[in-house]
Amino acid sequence: MTHGGNIFEIQRNCNIDKNQLLDYSANINPLGVPQTFKKIMKESLEDIEHYPDIHYDALKTAIEKYYTIDKSHIYLGNGAAEIIFNTIRAIAPKKSILLAPTFSEYAKALNAVDSVIEEVHLKKEDEFSLDMEELIETIDTSTDLVVLCNPNNPTGTLIETKDIVKLLKKCHEKNTYLMIDEAFMDFIEEDKFYSMLHSYKLYPHLIIVRAFTKFYSIPGMRLGFGVCCNEGILKKIYKITPPWNLNTFASYFGKVLLTEEQYVKETYQWLKEEKSRFVTALEKIEGMKTFAPSVNFILIKILKPSMTVDELRDKLLKKGILIRDCSNFNGLDKSYFRIAIKDEASNDILIENLKIVMGK
Amino acid sequence: MTHGGNIFEIQRNCNIDKNQLLDYSANINPLGVPQTFKKIMKESLEDIEHYPDIHYDALKTAIEKYYTIDKSHIYLGNGAAEIIFNTIRAIAPKKSILLAPTFSEYAKALNAVDSVIEEVHLKKEDEFSLDMEELIETIDTSTDLVVLCNPNNPTGTLIETKDIVKLLKKCHEKNTYLMIDEAFMDFIEEDKFYSMLHSYKLYPHLIIVRAFTKFYSIPGMRLGFGVCCNEGILKKIYKITPPWNLNTFASYFGKVLLTEEQYVKETYQWLKEEKSRFVTALEKIEGMKTFAPSVNFILIKILKPSMTVDELRDKLLKKGILIRDCSNFNGLDKSYFRIAIKDEASNDILIENLKIVMGK
Repeated sequence: MTHGGNIFEIQRNCNIDKNQLLDYSANINPLGVPQTFKKIMKESLEDIEHYPDIHYDALKTAIEKYYTIDKSHIYLGNGAAEIIFNTIRAIAPKKSILLAPTFSEYAKALNAVDSVIEEVHLKKEDEFSLDMEELIETIDTSTDLVVLCNPNNPTGTLIETKDIVKLLKKCHEKNTYLMIDEAFMDFIEEDKFYSMLHSYKLYPHLIIVRAFTKFYSIPGMRLGFGVCCNEGILKKIYKITPPWNLNTFASYFGKVLLTEEQYVKETYQWLKEEKSRFVTALEKIEGMKTFAPSVNFILIKILKPSMTVDELRDKLLKKGILIRDCSNFNGLDKSYFRIAIKDEASNDILIENLKIVMGK
Repeated sequence: MTHGGNIFEIQRNCNIDKNQLLDYSANINPLGVPQTFKKIMKESLEDIEHYPDIHYDALKTAIEKYYTIDKSHIYLGNGAAEIIFNTIRAIAPKKSILLAPTFSEYAKALNAVDSVIEEVHLKKEDEFSLDMEELIETIDTSTDLVVLCNPNNPTGTLIETKDIVKLLKKCHEKNTYLMIDEAFMDFIEEDKFYSMLHSYKLYPHLIIVRAFTKFYSIPGMRLGFGVCCNEGILKKIYKITPPWNLNTFASYFGKVLLTEEQYVKETYQWLKEEKSRFVTALEKIEGMKTFAPSVNFILIKILKPSMTVDELRDKLLKKGILIRDCSNFNGLDKSYFRIAIKDEASNDILIENLKIVMGK
C-alpha cells in the first residue's frame, strides 16, 4: 500500500473488521473529531441540498483570523493533496528538487506535470536532518521548484526558519519556487522557529501548504489550504481549480477553528506527555532504533538483520495493529516503519506487542 | 454571479437570510437529501477520523451495479466539476468545440489548459436544438475535443443517441474526443434514446460525465463520476487526480444508490406531474416565452422590450425568490432566465409573483 491509514483496504484484503483495528499507520490526533464539528454536521445535514459558497468566504475569514494571515493570500483545497497537486500544476516545473525520504504525493504531483525530479538525500547518520548547505548548492537556474515537508514525513525532522530564509535567498536569485508542506505544523505549540506562516509575505517565491486533517482528526472531511503572497501564482492556481472544491461541512469548519481553544490545549497537553513517555518505552525495546519525533509520529528502524518490516507488519496485523511499512519511501528500505502517537492505553498495547514480536 | 445556487453570496450581499430564500436558480430535486443518506451521515460522523478508502471500492461497485457498467471504466470526482476539469486536463485539447449557450465550466476547464474554443451556436429559432449536421461538419483533424451537455443546461434540449452515434463516427475518423455531460440524465426515466451509458463500451473516443448532485439533492456533498472505456485516457486521468478526492460521506453513497428505489419513483412521479402543470401555468403568463423543458429546469425569454432580466431578478429577489439570470451564457442576452422546477406549493408562489411582476 502506498499510504498509511487505508483501513478499508485492510478490511477487504485481510478480513479484519476496520473498527477492530488499532491504526498506527495514519497520524491522526487521538482526541478525535472536535465536538463542535460533530454538532455542526449533525445540525446541518440538510444544508448539503445547497451548493456550498463558491467563494468559501466564511472559512477564509476564519483562517485569516486564526493564523493572522491575509485572506486574499489563502486558497482552499479538497485536502492538502489537492493543494499540492494544484500548486505544482500552476508552477508547472520542468525540474524540481525533492528530499528523500519524504511524503510520496509530491513525486506523484510532479510526475503529473512530467517534471524531472532531483533528490537530495537525508542521511540516517545525520538522524535524517537536512543539510541545508547541500540543498542550496543543488539549486541552479534550471531548478523551477523545491519541495520541503516541515516537519518531514516520515522522518519527523524539522527545518528552522533561519535556514529556510537562506534557502529563499537562493530561490530568489535563481527564480526558483519553494513549496513547504506544513501539514503537521499545528502540532508544534511554539512554531515561530519553524513555520514560515509568520513571514510568508516577504517571499513571493514561497508557497505554504497546510491541512486540518491531522490536528483536528478529520482526514475524511478533505480540507487543506495554501498560502502565497504571489498574485501571479494565485491567479494560475485559481485558473485550474474546479469550482466548489470543498464540501458543505468542510466549508463550515471556520466555526470550529475559532471556538475550539480547549481542544487545542488538550492536544498540546496530550502530545507533550505522551510523546516523551511513549518514546522512552519504545527506546527500551531491543532490536530497533527510535528516531526522535517532533510531532505525532515516529520513524523506527529495525536493527535485527533477521527481521524485515513485512514480517513485523504481518505479525502486528495478526494482533489487530496496523503500522506503516516505510520501505516504499525513496531512501528507506525494508527495515523502516512509522507509527503514530496515540492515546496512552493504545500506545501501551503497541508497546506490549512490539516487545513480544521483537523479542523473538 | 457566474452560477446559480449561491445563496451564501445573496445572504452576504443582499442581507437576505438564506433560509428564507426560495432558490429557483439551482436545479435540485425538491424531495431533498434521501433519508437513508441522512441516516448514514448521522451514524458515521466519527468515520471522518479515518481516511476514506483511497480506491473507493464500495462506491464504484455500487455504481457498476446500479448502471450496469464496468467498474474499471468508472472514475470518481469531487463533484462533476472535478470530472470535467480532470478529463479536459487529461485530453489536453489544443482546439475544442463547445455549444453556445451551455454550462460555463466547460469553457473554464478548457481555458485552464489554454485550448482554443470554437462555438457552435444553438438557435432560438430552432428552440435551441442542436443541428447535428452542422456540428459534424465543423469537426476536422485539428479538433481534439467536442463537449456536449445532454440535456443541455440552460436550454433543456436533448440530443438523441442515434445522432450522437453519427457524431462519434466522425470523431473516430478525425481522432476527436467527445465528452458528454449527462449531469441531469437521471431525471429522464426512459433514458435509452438519450444516454450513451448503455453503449459507451463501443466508443473509445467517448467520455461520459455524470453526477448525483441534482437528482439526489446533494450539491454540498460533491460527488460525480466519469465513464470511459479508453484505458489510455483513464490512465492519464488517474495520473493527474489527487488521492482521496472524495470525502468519507460521499464514499458511502453507494448504499443510498442501491436502496433508494422509492425516492427514485417519487422523483419521477413528482417531475411528471409538476413539469406539465408548471409549464402550463408559466405559458399563461404574458410577456414571456417558456421553452419546453426536458428535465427539472426551464429556460424562459422575456418578450417585453421594456424589461431586462436584471429588473426581473431584482423584483423577484425582493419577494425572496432567486432566479438564474442567463445573460452571462454565451449566446443568450439580458432577456433570458432559468428556473428550477420545485414542489407544487413553491411553484405556485413563483407563478403568482411572476404574474405580478410581468403584469406591470
